[in-house]
Amino acid sequence: MNSNRPVHTPQRHFQAVDGCLMVGGMPLTRLAERVGSTPFFAYDRSVIKKRVAELRAALPAAIELHFSVKANPMPAVVQLMSGLVDGFDVASASELRVALDTTMPAGEISFAGPGKLDAELAQAIAAGVVLSLESPNEARRAAAIGDRLGLTPRVLLRVNPDFEMKSSGMKMGGGAKQFGVDAEAAPQLLREIGAMGLDFHGLQIFSGSQSLSAETIVDAQRNTFELAQRLAEHAPAPIALLNIGGGFGIPYFPGEAPLDLAPVSEQLAAMLPRISDALPGTRVAIELGRYLVGEAGIYVTRITDRKVSRGQVFLVTDGGMNHHLAASGNLGQVIRKNYPVAIGNRMAVDGEGAALETVSVVGPLCTPLDTLADRMPLPHADVGDLVVVFQSGAYGPSASPANFLSRQPAAEVLV
Amino acid sequence: MNSNRPVHTPQRHFQAVDGCLMVGGMPLTRLAERVGSTPFFAYDRSVIKKRVAELRAALPAAIELHFSVKANPMPAVVQLMSGLVDGFDVASASELRVALDTTMPAGEISFAGPGKLDAELAQAIAAGVVLSLESPNEARRAAAIGDRLGLTPRVLLRVNPDFEMKSSGMKMGGGAKQFGVDAEAAPQLLREIGAMGLDFHGLQIFSGSQSLSAETIVDAQRNTFELAQRLAEHAPAPIALLNIGGGFGIPYFPGEAPLDLAPVSEQLAAMLPRISDALPGTRVAIELGRYLVGEAGIYVTRITDRKVSRGQVFLVTDGGMNHHLAASGNLGQVIRKNYPVAIGNRMAVDGEGAALETVSVVGPLCTPLDTLADRMPLPHADVGDLVVVFQSGAYGPSASPANFLSRQPAAEVLV
Repeated sequence: MNSNRPVHTPQRHFQAVDGCLMVGGMPLTRLAERVGSTPFFAYDRSVIKKRVAELRAALPAAIELHFSVKANPMPAVVQLMSGLVDGFDVASASELRVALDTTMPAGEISFAGPGKLDAELAQAIAAGVVLSLESPNEARRAAAIGDRLGLTPRVLLRVNPDFEMKSSGMKMGGGAKQFGVDAEAAPQLLREIGAMGLDFHGLQIFSGSQSLSAETIVDAQRNTFELAQRLAEHAPAPIALLNIGGGFGIPYFPGEAPLDLAPVSEQLAAMLPRISDALPGTRVAIELGRYLVGEAGIYVTRITDRKVSRGQVFLVTDGGMNHHLAASGNLGQVIRKNYPVAIGNRMAVDGEGAALETVSVVGPLCTPLDTLADRMPLPHADVGDLVVVFQSGAYGPSASPANFLSRQPAAEVLV
Repeated sequence: MNSNRPVHTPQRHFQAVDGCLMVGGMPLTRLAERVGSTPFFAYDRSVIKKRVAELRAALPAAIELHFSVKANPMPAVVQLMSGLVDGFDVASASELRVALDTTMPAGEISFAGPGKLDAELAQAIAAGVVLSLESPNEARRAAAIGDRLGLTPRVLLRVNPDFEMKSSGMKMGGGAKQFGVDAEAAPQLLREIGAMGLDFHGLQIFSGSQSLSAETIVDAQRNTFELAQRLAEHAPAPIALLNIGGGFGIPYFPGEAPLDLAPVSEQLAAMLPRISDALPGTRVAIELGRYLVGEAGIYVTRITDRKVSRGQVFLVTDGGMNHHLAASGNLGQVIRKNYPVAIGNRMAVDGEGAALETVSVVGPLCTPLDTLADRMPLPHADVGDLVVVFQSGAYGPSASPANFLSRQPAAEVLV
């Protein structure tokens, strides 16, 4: 093994006791018995709580935190989050239902997404949540549905900014996009929103996601504040809520390092008084999904066969890409890289140098796409051992083709 | 538009009448009413039948055709196929159940897949289907389960060949692979299979899939026949069935052309007498999934918004990557390319040159990954029109994350 090869950032959220990974205070082997079957996803509530607490401590107190439900829509997780954050953002009518089943007030829930149907708009308006408007067409339909229901829709305008978020995993704004209205077209739509009698609540400006560069985020936030101030002049009412999006990434791949929050926090602290001056009474929210829950989750799958093909060891597991498409490298990744993987019941014991072998971990599907780890150094493992994929708390089962090859979904537990 | 730009191979399976695509003899607009909701997948049984008939006519009559159920496990499709082909290959216990519910005899069904569980082996042995053994471990477990059930498992040995299928969309054999046993290790396992008292049925040698090159397929088939003859010397019984895999591709992307079957057929005609001499009584089967059903299916989604962002037109639809991951470019594709797309209720009318505009078709998900067509010339379309994605009869809904953003699966109909 070349020691200069980039490595995964060390796992700091999960400890091992006597060589077994602990999850929610329980050895993984016992948790597997508790769940009753493999594969499964386990989300550790203490890790989620700690993450939110650390983030609150790092950021100015006035910054509100929103949870983007699409990152992990498991109802128990959403319920947990409802006690930890200040608002929810949902992206479908089903997510809306899950959000409304929690203790989060409807007024703190916003619903974004291009192509919302009339039925979805009606659900949101009837629920009293905030609609993030994505187009003039949607604004007009929302107004008509509000008239029909005898309710005044409360709306944010989602703006496609006139800048790009550099070096983000995924660009959600800048250039030509299906999301929101272009910044340069926003003034006119803001006036129309006023004329339509919609209850204008503020702006949502989302420029990108999964960035590990504080500089990128600082730039995007500065540009976002400037854009918001320019647009506020055209708004039909004061900006009650300014959702500046998220973009905070987590390290998935070798060579990636955690995001440094210090520069982000420093700039926010400097900007907030100026925002208060320019936009009195405006609440500023950061919308995060993956950053809040991604590191709190693991995917666990059991080895069902160990085989050697032409000198290469393959650990075949009872789950794979059908449960965890992103870890197989098939969710928006151009070049496949390994997620951090461990053998959960064969963790290194302090003081012992674990003998590693290079193995590939593959799922049970009849396709070479079904790979969880490609030639990775791991402790020797065999049939019955538990493979753990870290950084699996966001965009796991909900973003995966559970029924591929007519297979079954994985269980999910919050522990 | 640059006329030298590569284009999609013309659709020959679906015609338009009065500007509307016909599916199963019905205008698409009427079919959408019949289905009752969009989005949906529609598979045209007449196209499937014609495809099988054309293939039978092109290949030597002695070649058996197997359908790989994973390509389209919709029960109605599998039932249809049971009357058209000679055998099924399944890749999971659920696919096995669907296959057994049809009129296909159990003895003509084989079950492949790495990491088969004891419970799955028991199901297959109890059903009397043929097990494709993927490892020595699996052979031993199958023998033990047969003993327990008082049944003799009928088995194929799946061989990882000692050659690669060049220029195929996906390499299933050659080099180090999780599938089957390496050709060089096969002789020993063949002897063990005999010693264990398993009912040896033959060999399955699958080297790749989705190849559009007749030369590649001809090479792979020649190598496969040679390998089979070498291995037959070590087999504990005559080779009753030689499954030489498939690999026949269909054109998805601009610049791709349909596979030319003539060279494949010529070589098979030349090889079959030699196979009969060397391996008397051996049946030769080709296993095809996508080639049989892929072109018979379309994905249909309705436009819910039309918007312009910085000069680029976006048609937002009510479905996208959550139903059709492959068309969004996220299923094993390194570079995203457009599937063939049309506006199903605005097809060109004979004699009229349709005025085209360049548009992007995007689904309703809050992610830029949700793209069905990226800057493609299409007739002018608006809210309510039906976007059709062709070449969608294989690896569609079953290979897609239906519940992404907590959304719902698409309907499927066989017409």
